[in-house]
Amino acid sequence: MISVARTSYVRLSFPENLFKEEKEIVPMAMAKVGFCCSLNLIRPKHGRLLVIASASNAKSLDIMNGKKVNGIHVNEETRHQRLLNQRVADAPLHACLLGKFVEDRFLYRQTFIVRSYEIGPDKTATMETLLNLLQETALNHVTSSGLAGNGFGATREMSVRKLIWVVTRINIQVQRYSCWGDVVEIDTWVDAAGKNAMRRDWIIRDYRTQEIITRATSTWVIMNRETRRLSKIPEQVRQEVLPFYLGRVAIAKEQNDVGKIDKLTDETAERIRSGLAPRWNDMDANQHVNNVKYIGWILESVPIHVLKDYNLTSMTLEYRRECRQSNLLESLTSSTASVTGDPNNNSNNRIADLEYTHLLRMQADKAEIVRARSEWQSKQITQAIT
Amino acid sequence: MISVARTSYVRLSFPENLFKEEKEIVPMAMAKVGFCCSLNLIRPKHGRLLVIASASNAKSLDIMNGKKVNGIHVNEETRHQRLLNQRVADAPLHACLLGKFVEDRFLYRQTFIVRSYEIGPDKTATMETLLNLLQETALNHVTSSGLAGNGFGATREMSVRKLIWVVTRINIQVQRYSCWGDVVEIDTWVDAAGKNAMRRDWIIRDYRTQEIITRATSTWVIMNRETRRLSKIPEQVRQEVLPFYLGRVAIAKEQNDVGKIDKLTDETAERIRSGLAPRWNDMDANQHVNNVKYIGWILESVPIHVLKDYNLTSMTLEYRRECRQSNLLESLTSSTASVTGDPNNNSNNRIADLEYTHLLRMQADKAEIVRARSEWQSKQITQAIT
Repeated sequence: MISVARTSYVRLSFPENLFKEEKEIVPMAMAKVGFCCSLNLIRPKHGRLLVIASASNAKSLDIMNGKKVNGIHVNEETRHQRLLNQRVADAPLHACLLGKFVEDRFLYRQTFIVRSYEIGPDKTATMETLLNLLQETALNHVTSSGLAGNGFGATREMSVRKLIWVVTRINIQVQRYSCWGDVVEIDTWVDAAGKNAMRRDWIIRDYRTQEIITRATSTWVIMNRETRRLSKIPEQVRQEVLPFYLGRVAIAKEQNDVGKIDKLTDETAERIRSGLAPRWNDMDANQHVNNVKYIGWILESVPIHVLKDYNLTSMTLEYRRECRQSNLLESLTSSTASVTGDPNNNSNNRIADLEYTHLLRMQADKAEIVRARSEWQSKQITQAIT
Repeated sequence: MISVARTSYVRLSFPENLFKEEKEIVPMAMAKVGFCCSLNLIRPKHGRLLVIASASNAKSLDIMNGKKVNGIHVNEETRHQRLLNQRVADAPLHACLLGKFVEDRFLYRQTFIVRSYEIGPDKTATMETLLNLLQETALNHVTSSGLAGNGFGATREMSVRKLIWVVTRINIQVQRYSCWGDVVEIDTWVDAAGKNAMRRDWIIRDYRTQEIITRATSTWVIMNRETRRLSKIPEQVRQEVLPFYLGRVAIAKEQNDVGKIDKLTDETAERIRSGLAPRWNDMDANQHVNNVKYIGWILESVPIHVLKDYNLTSMTLEYRRECRQSNLLESLTSSTASVTGDPNNNSNNRIADLEYTHLLRMQADKAEIVRARSEWQSKQITQAIT
């Protein structure tokens, strides 16, 4: 076990065995040079779908003798025609569904519309939605890169050594939450983080105004997927990924939440919500809890008036242990202080009205799963400013 | 209270007040003629985003003096240029993000890629994901139509009368679940259903092969949004929507699950899972539980070996009552019979290895929320056939 920036870790809950059986070598339409995969898998099963046609170019070919026909019986010839149309590569649809490289392939960019089921009670995209979209962009970045060694998401040199990337910490800072129907543009890139870690950053822009509305940064280390122990980044792996590092930060140093997150206990927690049971649908392909789901449980111990009247402006998650369906969970929360104007708070230059410390732990043995810190700003104040 | 096909109902959980404050009359890019809105709202807040530019056409303009720059400081001029580029209407991206009309505007079609966070433990899109995508397509159908009277999703004649559409029953039949990265194409349309109801159907195709992989049908009735009572469809409303009805069915009559769903009780239920607590994130903008979330709770009382070893091939939901966060829920399940070859089962011509009846109810007063029936097919058999 080596010493890394944070010794805590959790196996990333993306399904590492997802494409174990996928033997096919997929020609990647956009991939000419490689890229360090920062996630636990590299490509969808049907990578060939990366080359797809524009639905918008496909004429409506299944009209059946006028308009009113009972049943769905599409003419075989028109079906064939549509299939042919779809073979034509179409960059706009590809970019829309999977994203594209920009800035000499240092950045990966994907555009999303906020969908009806991705908004919460306050009518805007939820924090879970944002993290899902960040995850999706990162995965598509890796999917579209081509350096990946096999289905496990590692580079070739990592695959040879049975190494995978695992996330240890993520900080997301939200200036403004998007509404249903808003279009957002997400950029992601990676960089070195000390000697034995990698950093992945994201910027979310309002597509229409190009205003930056969210910034996020995360730290990743390498783990042996069999022994589950952390590893140094081997020199051969470093040589693979080095050309793709971009020396740019999404969150300026003085704004970044790098402070220690205190461990909550039965004594220090103000609120404890017990009996949280992961549902079947919370599991990923490895029967582990998807790490984005943790957010929902953490918020379960936040007072309801805070959820209603405040915006979650910053969230820092420190992953420490993986979680399976059989585990009952407990969510602990404690307010740190009234933050504004307090020089000792963890928010540094970030403005927050409330700050909370959280712990998600196993109910049985109290083993830590995630430590977290959240910062909140009154919606009334936010509205008054904007 | 009039007599309709089913007197049971639930207010659709889409946020009816979502855009109450939205005064702006939004020019709809694609809307020339109207369309019956079958949902509880009609358009995203920023309807103007319907005219958006192709991200793929926008050149990478924010390169900053080479590649390696610290911080995000995009040149104002290039930012302006990007904004200008985005003003150019771009049909492909619009079609990708929101969908488009086909077949003389009788059908609405949208293409989706199955995202990394939309798959379940068996590595394919979950039933919740499918229903989310159906909802999204239906909403975008309505959003792009233009007949809508105000922000409440009704037609003009409905708005005048304070009427809204509510869903009473939905049946979804899945031939094959898509994997992560698969692209699916969803068609949706509406038709009359008896004198006082509307039917909305969907077809999901594998975009690559054009194979139909899922069919779904749903029934909608009209409710007064203040009295919460069902209403006849007024003649003026019928005249509005009639031109948009398409006499086509996604599920052939003999395949449709129209059978009565028995009410489960403490006595008849084989399995009862109590203490299900809606999370804050399960709420929609009206603090009601989003109706797609019910699926997850229903599946909580299905034996885990069934969830693991069988495919959910058909699900019928009969909505009876709305649910708020404060309500604790109970999920009841009972196997109907070993279905194959049983002439008395509800599956008619559908092939199923297992059939279950479900009830989701309030824990306190046992009031019914949703009755459901599910049909399952062994994954081994499915694999052997395909």
